[in-house]
Amino acid sequence: MMISIKRTLLWHCMLFCLGLSLLWSTRLLADAITPLRPLPSLSAARAALGKDLFHDLRLSADGRISCASCHPLAQGGSDNLPQSTGIGGAVGQVNAPTVYNAAYNCMQFWDGRAANLHEQAADPITNPAKMGSQWPALLQRLQQDRPLVARFQRLYPEEGLTQTSIIDALVNFEFSLITVDAPFDRWLQGDSGAMGTLALQGYYKFREFGCVSCHQGRLVGGNMFADMGTLHDYFRDRAEPPKESDLGRYRVTQNISDRYQFKVPSLRLAIKTPPYFHDGSSPTISDAVNKMAYYQLGRSLNSDDVEALVAFIASLQGKHELLN
Amino acid sequence: MMISIKRTLLWHCMLFCLGLSLLWSTRLLADAITPLRPLPSLSAARAALGKDLFHDLRLSADGRISCASCHPLAQGGSDNLPQSTGIGGAVGQVNAPTVYNAAYNCMQFWDGRAANLHEQAADPITNPAKMGSQWPALLQRLQQDRPLVARFQRLYPEEGLTQTSIIDALVNFEFSLITVDAPFDRWLQGDSGAMGTLALQGYYKFREFGCVSCHQGRLVGGNMFADMGTLHDYFRDRAEPPKESDLGRYRVTQNISDRYQFKVPSLRLAIKTPPYFHDGSSPTISDAVNKMAYYQLGRSLNSDDVEALVAFIASLQGKHELLN
Repeated sequence: MMISIKRTLLWHCMLFCLGLSLLWSTRLLADAITPLRPLPSLSAARAALGKDLFHDLRLSADGRISCASCHPLAQGGSDNLPQSTGIGGAVGQVNAPTVYNAAYNCMQFWDGRAANLHEQAADPITNPAKMGSQWPALLQRLQQDRPLVARFQRLYPEEGLTQTSIIDALVNFEFSLITVDAPFDRWLQGDSGAMGTLALQGYYKFREFGCVSCHQGRLVGGNMFADMGTLHDYFRDRAEPPKESDLGRYRVTQNISDRYQFKVPSLRLAIKTPPYFHDGSSPTISDAVNKMAYYQLGRSLNSDDVEALVAFIASLQGKHELLN
Repeated sequence: MMISIKRTLLWHCMLFCLGLSLLWSTRLLADAITPLRPLPSLSAARAALGKDLFHDLRLSADGRISCASCHPLAQGGSDNLPQSTGIGGAVGQVNAPTVYNAAYNCMQFWDGRAANLHEQAADPITNPAKMGSQWPALLQRLQQDRPLVARFQRLYPEEGLTQTSIIDALVNFEFSLITVDAPFDRWLQGDSGAMGTLALQGYYKFREFGCVSCHQGRLVGGNMFADMGTLHDYFRDRAEPPKESDLGRYRVTQNISDRYQFKVPSLRLAIKTPPYFHDGSSPTISDAVNKMAYYQLGRSLNSDDVEALVAFIASLQGKHELLN
């Protein structure tokens, strides 16, 4: 009995000390959002090769679509269409997310079916509704291009131009697409003038309303899955009839509780990449903010709230040389 | 009103059809666990270079520790210690997970602080409690090794031996560490004799008890975070006093609801990698199964249950040429 009380006391003391030390150590880190920084190491030449491949129409079966067709870099890495158009006019099932900062997503695609960019980059190239290529024919097409083959030989002397080296170059390019120095990041790092009053009000509302429970981490999203429609039934209210892609993460895990779950998208470039949601059904950022508040948080926003939240979302946009 | 009824009817019809087609299309995929397959493309030479680096003691500040010290490949990619020992006898805060199949984890480390292996691989090399190196000194050490420098020049002609190419080679090696052809995978793919009766009973219990809600996907884990102690307070019961590392995912997100959350570990090689849990406190697989049932599912298992679940976990172990 005595020993048990002593142990309980010891635990409480330790918990108290731990709490104090944590309070101290996290004083400067108390934000659930952290600044976005480039990957620590990057191969410039492989990234440059990847950039050219990213814009290369020969990656698609009909020679009319490149990665950049659905992910134009100047306008935010997404094509601003509800669903993108693949070869032969095929229409995708879900909204194309931005490629910027994708390297830091927990998984790739809305349903997280790829664990990393190496898995992800291979998908659209052979997906019949996207670029629709077959690897043998694609390699044959590119093999005709002597300077390109030589460039691969130079950078990948072991293997030359292969599926592996193509994917690797594309991934290296995607690694380079990190947006930095957003006003919010500068503010986080102590530059108190980096954000306007409205954006700052928006940040406090973002925390207060609970948006930050899902949109957190350096990407302000991109590191967990969440139900689409936590407090109200999003799919019942939507005009568009249901599609298989609405099942979201369930399609990967076959786990009933994962139905209608999607990867929480990063808000880093949201201001530039309408329309919104996995189905591309929300045309403007204000509409998306209103709908998220209603469906995820059961909250009705007034126009001041929306304005402030949009200003905060705008302050999350960092810089990249390829971004307008 | 009429339009509204019509629309409701249309929705119900569509939902019904969608349900039917899904039932059909997922008939063969009804398992929340899917077979494990190698990454589709892999650079053999970069992986081989990475393998040598993985075993290279010069990566640590005192020349006494390699990646393989804490992740010995023959015995399952983990050192079977509660916490690993770094340079100068420094003891890590959490249990070293296996490197096998890490490429398919949703994030890396127990707290998910690295989004991908490129971020992950850089951490232990400079972590003072692990290999404790500084990049400039490490590069200088390796630059003395002319054959190694030549090998980097051959495989990475653009840059030679740099932080980027070292990390890239290590990651390519980690990409190659996928275990395949586990009895359970063969069973999933139709080989009804691949699993013993006990293991199969274990699988049904694994589903029935709810273990599969968290341990799912191709890694049977590794794709979500979960509270350590959902139904009972794990940390109150544990003998060891609390540590900062017990806060888990919270340390990354600073989100209160993420306290005590950890990445659900893959069970693919669990049979070979005691001790268990982020704190390495559970010495045997039977103990871990019992504790998980109690803390996560509020369930007491009898010895038949445990035996069957352990047999199932054993059936998840795939093959790899480096694994005994």
